[in-house]
Amino acid sequence: MTQATFDAAEYATRLARVRQRMAERRLDLLILTDPCNLYYLSGYDAWSFYVPQYLLVAADATHPIWFGRAMDLRGAEITTGYDAAALEAYPDDYVQAADRHPAQLLAALIDRRGWGGARIGVELSSYYLTAVGHAQLKAGLPRADFVDASLLVNWVRLIKSPAEIDCMRVAGKIVEGAMRTAIETIDAGVRQCDVAAEIYRALIAGTPEHGGQYASSPPLMPSGERVATPHLSWTDAPYRVGEQTNFELVASRHRYHMPLSRSVFLGRPSPRLRSLEQAALDGIDAALDAARPGATAADVEAAWQGAAGRYGVRKPARCGYAIGIAYPPTFGEQTASLRPADRTVLEPGMTFHLMPGLWLDGESIVITEPFVVTATGAEPFCAFERKLFVKP
Amino acid sequence: MTQATFDAAEYATRLARVRQRMAERRLDLLILTDPCNLYYLSGYDAWSFYVPQYLLVAADATHPIWFGRAMDLRGAEITTGYDAAALEAYPDDYVQAADRHPAQLLAALIDRRGWGGARIGVELSSYYLTAVGHAQLKAGLPRADFVDASLLVNWVRLIKSPAEIDCMRVAGKIVEGAMRTAIETIDAGVRQCDVAAEIYRALIAGTPEHGGQYASSPPLMPSGERVATPHLSWTDAPYRVGEQTNFELVASRHRYHMPLSRSVFLGRPSPRLRSLEQAALDGIDAALDAARPGATAADVEAAWQGAAGRYGVRKPARCGYAIGIAYPPTFGEQTASLRPADRTVLEPGMTFHLMPGLWLDGESIVITEPFVVTATGAEPFCAFERKLFVKP
Repeated sequence: MTQATFDAAEYATRLARVRQRMAERRLDLLILTDPCNLYYLSGYDAWSFYVPQYLLVAADATHPIWFGRAMDLRGAEITTGYDAAALEAYPDDYVQAADRHPAQLLAALIDRRGWGGARIGVELSSYYLTAVGHAQLKAGLPRADFVDASLLVNWVRLIKSPAEIDCMRVAGKIVEGAMRTAIETIDAGVRQCDVAAEIYRALIAGTPEHGGQYASSPPLMPSGERVATPHLSWTDAPYRVGEQTNFELVASRHRYHMPLSRSVFLGRPSPRLRSLEQAALDGIDAALDAARPGATAADVEAAWQGAAGRYGVRKPARCGYAIGIAYPPTFGEQTASLRPADRTVLEPGMTFHLMPGLWLDGESIVITEPFVVTATGAEPFCAFERKLFVKP
Repeated sequence: MTQATFDAAEYATRLARVRQRMAERRLDLLILTDPCNLYYLSGYDAWSFYVPQYLLVAADATHPIWFGRAMDLRGAEITTGYDAAALEAYPDDYVQAADRHPAQLLAALIDRRGWGGARIGVELSSYYLTAVGHAQLKAGLPRADFVDASLLVNWVRLIKSPAEIDCMRVAGKIVEGAMRTAIETIDAGVRQCDVAAEIYRALIAGTPEHGGQYASSPPLMPSGERVATPHLSWTDAPYRVGEQTNFELVASRHRYHMPLSRSVFLGRPSPRLRSLEQAALDGIDAALDAARPGATAADVEAAWQGAAGRYGVRKPARCGYAIGIAYPPTFGEQTASLRPADRTVLEPGMTFHLMPGLWLDGESIVITEPFVVTATGAEPFCAFERKLFVKP
C-alpha cells in the first residue's frame, strides 16, 4: 500500500510537466538525485539520501523507476506505491565502499533497459549526485550523451498546485506557533539551548490537527556578538540583557517548508537598530506591494531596495528566494531569487521567502515574510506581528 | 575573537596528521569541502554548507585558508579565529546563479597564491563539492594535477583525542536522556509527532551542565507497518496497541554525534520478535567482546554474525560504522565499516556505532551500542538497558 500525500492526478500532472521540459531539451532519460525531486515526482520520503539513490524518468515510459539501497526498498514501496518492476536496488556492500559505487550498477541497469545510447539529463549541481558518482555513471555508459539538467524539475516545482499551497499554509501555522514560543521563552538568564529545545518541540508537535516534520535546517538563532552574522546556531550560554537574538525558524509539513524570522532585543534597542527596523518594514511593505503576476523577481527586489534605501541601507545579498519542498541542507528551491539580475516573471502559485535580513557593520535585523503570488498580488503565509520584538 | 572548542595544540596535531597523509600522497594542496573536515581542522561551524565553501590546506603554509560566501565571513572569523589573510570570500551574486560558480573564483584564488600548477587533492565523494563545482574548478586550473583525496581527512578523524572522547561522552548522556523520554512518553493514543517533539526537546536541552546541538539527522522512529524498514520518520497518527516502534536517536555535542537505538513494543511481542531480540543481544555481547586493539572491523562483524546466526539470523548490511563529527546528511564517518571485507585494524580511540538493526520479513529489532576502543577492549558510551522495551 502507498501512504502518498497527494492523489494520482497530482503526480500525473507533475510528471507530464517534467516530460514536457524533457521534450524541449530532447532528453530520452532524466536521472534525478535531488531528494526533493524524488519526492515531488514519486512521493519517496526517507532519510536515505546519504547513500546514492536515483529516480529515472524516461520520455517513453509510463512510470519512473526508483533505484536505491536494498535496505530502503520496502520504504520505497510504502511511500511511492510503485510496483516491483519500478523498484530496483543495490546490495549493501556498495555502500561507502572504496572499490565500487552504486552508479556502476545504475549504468548497467540503464544499459539493460535499452538506454545505453540515450541522451541523458543529470543534475550536476545536486548535492547528492557527487563528482565521483557522475564520473562512474559516465564511465559505465560510454555511448550515452550526457546533458546537464540541473534544476529542470526544480523549475517545474516553482508553481505550486492548490494541494501544495494547502501544505504550506499548515506549515505557516506551525512556524507561527514556534515563533510565539521563541519570543515567550527567551529571557535574561535562560540558556539558549533551552529556548532552542522549546522551539523544536513547537515545530514538531505542530497544531492539534497537524504535526510537523523534521525540517531541512535547524532553527538558526545567533545571539549577542553572534548576531553580526547569519547561519550560526545557539550555545549553552544564558541570554543577557542588552543583547539581540535573530530567530530564523522553519517548519515542515509533508516536506513543504515555511520559514519565518524575527529579531528580539532584551532591553533597550539603539536608535540605529530602530532605524534598521523601519528600513526592513518599509522594504517589506514595498516588496509585497510590488509582487504580483507579471512583475519580475528583480522588480520585487528593486521595490525593497528603493524603500529600504531611504534609510541609507543597502543589502548586497538577494532579498528572497523560491520555497517549497525541502530536504537538508537547504529550504531554498535554488531557482528564482529576488535580486537585480533575476528576470523570472511572477505567476500565481509561486511561493517565496522574502528574506531581507540585514547584517551591517555589527548591527543586524532579521524580519522576513513568506508569501504566495495570487491572481492579483501577493499574500503572506503567516500572520505574525511584523516588528522588532523588545523584552521585557 | 575565537569561540573554538579545542585548544591550539589540538588543531596543530590534527593539521600535522593531515599534512603527513598529504606528503605520503605527494599533494601540494588539499581542497576540502566536507563541512566535517572544515570543522575538524579550522573550527568553522555554521549552517552555510548549502552554498560552496572550501578550506585550502597547503603543504607549505602554516595555516589553512577559508574561502566562502561573503555573508559568512564574520561567522568564519568568530568560529575559526583566523586572521584576515586566511579568510577569503565570494560575492552574493555567485550564489545559486545560472551563469557563474564560486569555484571559478576559487580557481583564480589558487592561481594567484601560486598553486596553479600544483598537485591538488579534492574530495570527489563529498556531498558539497558537487559535479559542477569540480568541473568548474578543473576548467579554471588547466595546469593543475587533480587527485581524488576523498576521505583523506576522514581517515585521520578515525582516531579520537581525549578531548574528542569527552565531547562524545557528553553526547552519550544527552542521547540516554532522549531515549528515556521516548520510552516514557510513547503510549497508545499519543500522536507520534508529540513523542518526536519531546525527543527533540530532550536532545537539545541536553543536561543541566551541557546543552545539545542540532544533529546531522532527525530522530528516525517508524511505527506499525513502517517498522519493516529503516529511515522512515514519524507521522501524525496515534500509537496503537499491538504495534512496535524503532527509535533511532542521535545527539550532538560540539558536532560530535552519539547515536542510540531501541525498539519498543506496545502490548505483547510475538515469540519470533523475542527470538530476534535474543539474537541481537547475544550478537552485541559477542561484538563488544571481539572489539579490541588488533582485531579488525571484519572480526567484530564475524563475532556478531556468529552469535546472532545461532538464531537463524543473517544481516546482509554492515553491522556498524565509525562515528564522530557530523553535519547533514549522515553521522557516519564514511571510513571503517563493521563488515566482512573491512580489514581496518582497531586502535585505541576509534569510535563506532555497533548498529545490528535487523529488518527481516516484516519483523524488525533495532538495539544498538556506540562504543570506543580502549587500550584493552571496547567500552560502550551509553549505559542504557539493552533489551526490547515492552509497554505497558
